[in-house]
Amino acid sequence: MINHPDGQVILLAHGDGGALSRELVEQVFLRHFKSEPLLPLADAALLDDSGGRLALTTDSFVVDPLFFNGGDIGKLAVCGTVNDLAVSGAVPRYLAASFMIEEGLPLATLERVAASMAAACAEAGVQVAAGDTKVVQRGHLDKLFITTTGVGWLPAGVEPGYHRLAAGDVVLINGFLGDHGLAVLSRRHGLELDGQIVSDCAPLNGITGALLARCPGVKIMRDLTRGGLATAVKEIALAAGVDFRLEEEALPVRDVVRGAAEMLGLDPLYLANEGKFLAVVDAKEAQTALDVLREHPLGRRTCAIGRVEAGRGNVYLQTVMGGTRLLDLLAGEPLPRIC
Amino acid sequence: MINHPDGQVILLAHGDGGALSRELVEQVFLRHFKSEPLLPLADAALLDDSGGRLALTTDSFVVDPLFFNGGDIGKLAVCGTVNDLAVSGAVPRYLAASFMIEEGLPLATLERVAASMAAACAEAGVQVAAGDTKVVQRGHLDKLFITTTGVGWLPAGVEPGYHRLAAGDVVLINGFLGDHGLAVLSRRHGLELDGQIVSDCAPLNGITGALLARCPGVKIMRDLTRGGLATAVKEIALAAGVDFRLEEEALPVRDVVRGAAEMLGLDPLYLANEGKFLAVVDAKEAQTALDVLREHPLGRRTCAIGRVEAGRGNVYLQTVMGGTRLLDLLAGEPLPRIC
Repeated sequence: MINHPDGQVILLAHGDGGALSRELVEQVFLRHFKSEPLLPLADAALLDDSGGRLALTTDSFVVDPLFFNGGDIGKLAVCGTVNDLAVSGAVPRYLAASFMIEEGLPLATLERVAASMAAACAEAGVQVAAGDTKVVQRGHLDKLFITTTGVGWLPAGVEPGYHRLAAGDVVLINGFLGDHGLAVLSRRHGLELDGQIVSDCAPLNGITGALLARCPGVKIMRDLTRGGLATAVKEIALAAGVDFRLEEEALPVRDVVRGAAEMLGLDPLYLANEGKFLAVVDAKEAQTALDVLREHPLGRRTCAIGRVEAGRGNVYLQTVMGGTRLLDLLAGEPLPRIC
Repeated sequence: MINHPDGQVILLAHGDGGALSRELVEQVFLRHFKSEPLLPLADAALLDDSGGRLALTTDSFVVDPLFFNGGDIGKLAVCGTVNDLAVSGAVPRYLAASFMIEEGLPLATLERVAASMAAACAEAGVQVAAGDTKVVQRGHLDKLFITTTGVGWLPAGVEPGYHRLAAGDVVLINGFLGDHGLAVLSRRHGLELDGQIVSDCAPLNGITGALLARCPGVKIMRDLTRGGLATAVKEIALAAGVDFRLEEEALPVRDVVRGAAEMLGLDPLYLANEGKFLAVVDAKEAQTALDVLREHPLGRRTCAIGRVEAGRGNVYLQTVMGGTRLLDLLAGEPLPRIC
């Protein structure tokens, strides 16, 4: 894509959160938008503000179908943006919500989505502070897209960052992987396992706040959305210039998710989550962090899944069979409209 | 829509910025999002911030075609959001930009849009601080939508507000009406007048800043986007509980725009502008304000178009023929995807 000829086109994979997404952002957007806060490509941008460090993040939600087991586009639009702030260490405060609607969308659908957003805002303790609505002709947009932008403040003393990672650090995740991705896919494709798999969509600022309060030394946090755990860990490894070694045996995946993913030819490590995050902590703090997370309703199944090693950006998975598998960014096999 | 039965659907007119848009926002969004900063439905939300008053605004851009005489969706996405901050009296600082892209969009198109955004950001003195990209399957979205969210700060002492309007205040606008709306429509419909009409799309924070610097007593400003001048004035009249009397003779409309609008059955007073705003000032400050605005490149054709009168939300247009026409919110005849 560096020397793209005229006529090269956007592929679905440019939106999958994997390797091509990264390339698109670097080759197109970063090149044009030379802004210091954008450069780290963090989940939320930290803005200069005379009164403190302001955090800003934005996300568009195009999930199909609009409603799925465990959530809907509205809940997702609130939680996804709240979570980007939360894993940045920020306290989410305000959302801006912009709605793009296809002519003919039942008003009842919009009501249901708005009500769901309001409930999620209440749960997360944020307010919608600004909004916009556009309607386009039938066929110009599939039903409903929502962009949410989040504003929050980074408490003094909280400063997660790639530069703080060091060999020996422990990687924690707060529960089962892949639930959101499969809940959406099973509803979309009418699979009979629909109903058994529930999206984990939830606002994470409560649990990240609890963690930071007790373990202010948390080195980095990351939510495991598009591209899943594997892509998130690989991106951190590349950005920090360290290796990660994960234990397959320690990775929590529900049996029903593992079975359905196998049936669909998907790897749960690459499936989207909307209520899961990883935290990297100093080994000395790992037990405290585990305890704190397990005390929270969204962290009952928290576990340590691996460690940081000196290296140059590789992610190794120690398989149950005793082998080693190299994990890379999600590439190919895009799952469009998963969030 | 208040007692809507199941099955009522979103109409194109719900997105036109007129009466039905207002109803939708009040009946659906305000009801669910009970947030103090959202309640005034101002162009930008003013947020509580220990360090000052933070302003936040968001807008989705779905203009069709993507490129038109005088601008494109990228320039529009920057200027539209910058202008919402500017007319709120805020100094725009950061943008978050979220891109929703149809699979198959030429990469060159996206490059061109991003470059245009970067140029507009430079002109406006803002930075893109956060972003997101989603790609959807062919046919699920028409080419490209962009949501921009703007963050700015309200300088101390600046506090425009409806409550400050009083009989005798003077209404100023900074130039010709309807250029943007007709530039987009003529390109979309391949009218032969294409080329003669150029969108006025421009960042207004320079000129609003200049005005506030010299006339800090400006009572209210408003950009004249979807719904045009008439809708903007009517909304202010309703919100402030005053009447407005505008002089048709004083309204600046280019001959080519007037002619084309007539041909298409459109009223220039309801056509969208993307580089025009109105300012209401105390009569004693009107001449100073006029002088300041005319000194600015975006205000050479500034003129006084009417006055505030005691009343209850009516907008009267004194016609050239000596009659009086009552102006209302835009209703019916929606012009979708004009911005």
